[in-house]
Amino acid sequence: MKHLLYLKDLTQETINQILDTADNFLDHGNQPIGSENLLKDKTIANLFFEPSTRTRSSFQIAARKLGADVINIDEEHSSRAKGETLIDTAMTLNAMHPDLIVIRHQDSGACNLLSQKVNCAVINAGDGRREHPTQALLDSLTILDRKKKIEGLRVAICGDILHSRVARSNIYLLNMLGAEVNIIAPSTLMPKDVEKLGVNKFSDMKKGLKGCDIVMMLRLQNERMNSSFLSSNREYYEYYGLTYDKLSYAKKDALIMHPGPMNRGIEIDTNLADDINKSVIKEQVELGVAVRMACLKLFCK
Amino acid sequence: MKHLLYLKDLTQETINQILDTADNFLDHGNQPIGSENLLKDKTIANLFFEPSTRTRSSFQIAARKLGADVINIDEEHSSRAKGETLIDTAMTLNAMHPDLIVIRHQDSGACNLLSQKVNCAVINAGDGRREHPTQALLDSLTILDRKKKIEGLRVAICGDILHSRVARSNIYLLNMLGAEVNIIAPSTLMPKDVEKLGVNKFSDMKKGLKGCDIVMMLRLQNERMNSSFLSSNREYYEYYGLTYDKLSYAKKDALIMHPGPMNRGIEIDTNLADDINKSVIKEQVELGVAVRMACLKLFCK
Amino acid sequence: MKHLLYLKDLTQETINQILDTADNFLDHGNQPIGSENLLKDKTIANLFFEPSTRTRSSFQIAARKLGADVINIDEEHSSRAKGETLIDTAMTLNAMHPDLIVIRHQDSGACNLLSQKVNCAVINAGDGRREHPTQALLDSLTILDRKKKIEGLRVAICGDILHSRVARSNIYLLNMLGAEVNIIAPSTLMPKDVEKLGVNKFSDMKKGLKGCDIVMMLRLQNERMNSSFLSSNREYYEYYGLTYDKLSYAKKDALIMHPGPMNRGIEIDTNLADDINKSVIKEQVELGVAVRMACLKLFCK
Repeated sequence: MKHLLYLKDLTQETINQILDTADNFLDHGNQPIGSENLLKDKTIANLFFEPSTRTRSSFQIAARKLGADVINIDEEHSSRAKGETLIDTAMTLNAMHPDLIVIRHQDSGACNLLSQKVNCAVINAGDGRREHPTQALLDSLTILDRKKKIEGLRVAICGDILHSRVARSNIYLLNMLGAEVNIIAPSTLMPKDVEKLGVNKFSDMKKGLKGCDIVMMLRLQNERMNSSFLSSNREYYEYYGLTYDKLSYAKKDALIMHPGPMNRGIEIDTNLADDINKSVIKEQVELGVAVRMACLKLFCK
Repeated sequence: MKHLLYLKDLTQETINQILDTADNFLDHGNQPIGSENLLKDKTIANLFFEPSTRTRSSFQIAARKLGADVINIDEEHSSRAKGETLIDTAMTLNAMHPDLIVIRHQDSGACNLLSQKVNCAVINAGDGRREHPTQALLDSLTILDRKKKIEGLRVAICGDILHSRVARSNIYLLNMLGAEVNIIAPSTLMPKDVEKLGVNKFSDMKKGLKGCDIVMMLRLQNERMNSSFLSSNREYYEYYGLTYDKLSYAKKDALIMHPGPMNRGIEIDTNLADDINKSVIKEQVELGVAVRMACLKLFCK
Repeated sequence: MKHLLYLKDLTQETINQILDTADNFLDHGNQPIGSENLLKDKTIANLFFEPSTRTRSSFQIAARKLGADVINIDEEHSSRAKGETLIDTAMTLNAMHPDLIVIRHQDSGACNLLSQKVNCAVINAGDGRREHPTQALLDSLTILDRKKKIEGLRVAICGDILHSRVARSNIYLLNMLGAEVNIIAPSTLMPKDVEKLGVNKFSDMKKGLKGCDIVMMLRLQNERMNSSFLSSNREYYEYYGLTYDKLSYAKKDALIMHPGPMNRGIEIDTNLADDINKSVIKEQVELGVAVRMACLKLFCK
């Protein structure tokens, strides 16, 4: 594999290699152990067409811990036409010979297009509504760290499935690793034919959470939807916001996950989000650095 | 002391330690002497919710001269709700295990809140209207460098006291180091009960500048005030803009300071600002790098 | 020479020194060879008052390959008054003792003004409508690499000459190196008295391209012009867009250049832009890193 674009195209062997490598970068406190010489003299370009604090910082910290140089290129404020600009930006960047490009773009397929135009490796850091592979990888690493396995677990993914690249990557990955996936969403936020991805479909939290080991809440992608999708935040919270009450439908030792940033009080109760006995949201971010170190190490040639 | 939040909470011993350490980083031309191994393998996060050129660059240069890596996170363009976002941003950043966070935020108390949520050290780089400690520290280092003492000096702080975190930090620090502080401002820009901070209060430049060794001008914080505070820039300059004329009320060897960026021709005469026999504005910036190196060294564990 | 401001003020000896140094940084695949110790402990400030992806990234990569630290300062979103701010920003930056400042500014003369206010070296990375010297230097290096000489070549520069600092720098440099320069533009985009710069002036592509070895297309600077300059993009393409048809007027082995970013389908046919037998646009970007490495090495004291 030259690029890390879409999890659905990866073999289980590659997935396991990434997860194992990430695990090896962690000490007992989940702090990533740097290794300055691994990517010394390598240049990583962070090419972000959408704003991002956490993902970009995570990649930057990961790159620096391996000794690589980082160039941040923010095209979010650029008003140029999209399609052609991406190709030309790619060609320009390519001619400066970076060793790896991390790209986030609002258009599905952008990272694939980029990968065809450049000589170096490309890592997808968020591709329209399609996939966000390193998020799903860090989610699986977090589950593995806490539950010691993924096979046989029942995982609920709840909320705005329609607009969520995080959901799509997690569905592919969790299925591949042997989990059973329940999808819970109101009908307006549920993609058509989602069952074809091998998941169980629910519109009722009570039914969907039943027997789940993991409850993965999604962010309401307000910037990607118009008012016709949702009646009100209040009603959404009533039916789909995760509360202690609704969580009681899941297994007693169920863990809560969220890719962040959270809309507290809309998709999740604020106390529940911070409940260290239930929530592993902090650990997700921690393991994110290790997962990105692993991806940089494995894909940076 | 784990964090550098508010000078009013620091002991004089800590203050002197910071100033001595900063002084040791300077060569005879006020150039900071780097020491690459001091903070090698440390990661400093610059988390700025307000725009800043000079303070952020100063911290970045300081960090790099000590061998630390720097992550710049600009949240100024983010439109998210403030309070909760800060906490979540803090928790997210914390989970990436930086060794120190430098924060600037428009809300008073933000850095304090941050410091309670993270495991690493926090340095306040501007906290609403409350404090801007490294600015006051570099101001005192500049005074010490030129006047060889602070105790017994009379220092005037003039202008928009109401909105100024720089004023507040300087009042605490100069009082602690034994200076007498005169506050000069029009009534609309003078905080209530400012005398309780141990200063003399004036609305007349002539009286307020009398016998002063240091004249510290403040920037008009136009972005923090509406038109009701000021009649006009022209009238403000007439009464409160520092000119050669008004400066003559101070001591003959009085030095002029300004935290920048200056509104030339409004709060200060442009020639006076550049008069190398009177103005130490350039030296303030120079010593700022050394002060930040000292703070990073002392607070980065 | 302390600064790299305007090519028209440089001697041919300095020009040759830059081009030779750049060439020495390239391996056989046009990849720049780093040399980490050359600028170790040096700090380069990238001060950009206009947005830029490629030029700033190119300088940043060049600086890092030589071991220098880079501070990026984006003032493009700043709404402050121009003139005075530039001076104060310059003085502030100067007081932090960078070793070299790279500046891009929308006002002609800005880099000259800056160079008078600071102690360190200044490199012009785009100065209003005046000059963009490193672009012309990388253009000449590209021509040299492909044609093995510049003297005696005929070079056409086509398009929006009026607003183009790239055109101006190339006219000075190509003349100095012995090329014959044809300028082709519609009358509204042709500067007055352009002949005084020692060029041939054409409004007809057919005539202007005749016998040319190099066809250098310029970007339509839409952000610098209002609608009175152009009737329509469609008409512009008809008369001045480079197509295979129009290119046939030039020499058979003519090479196409473009400083980027391109407006495909307006100033150049999209297939022609990507035709690796004709276009050396990618090579221009590649050699840009080497040229900037050379400039940083030679001007960073």
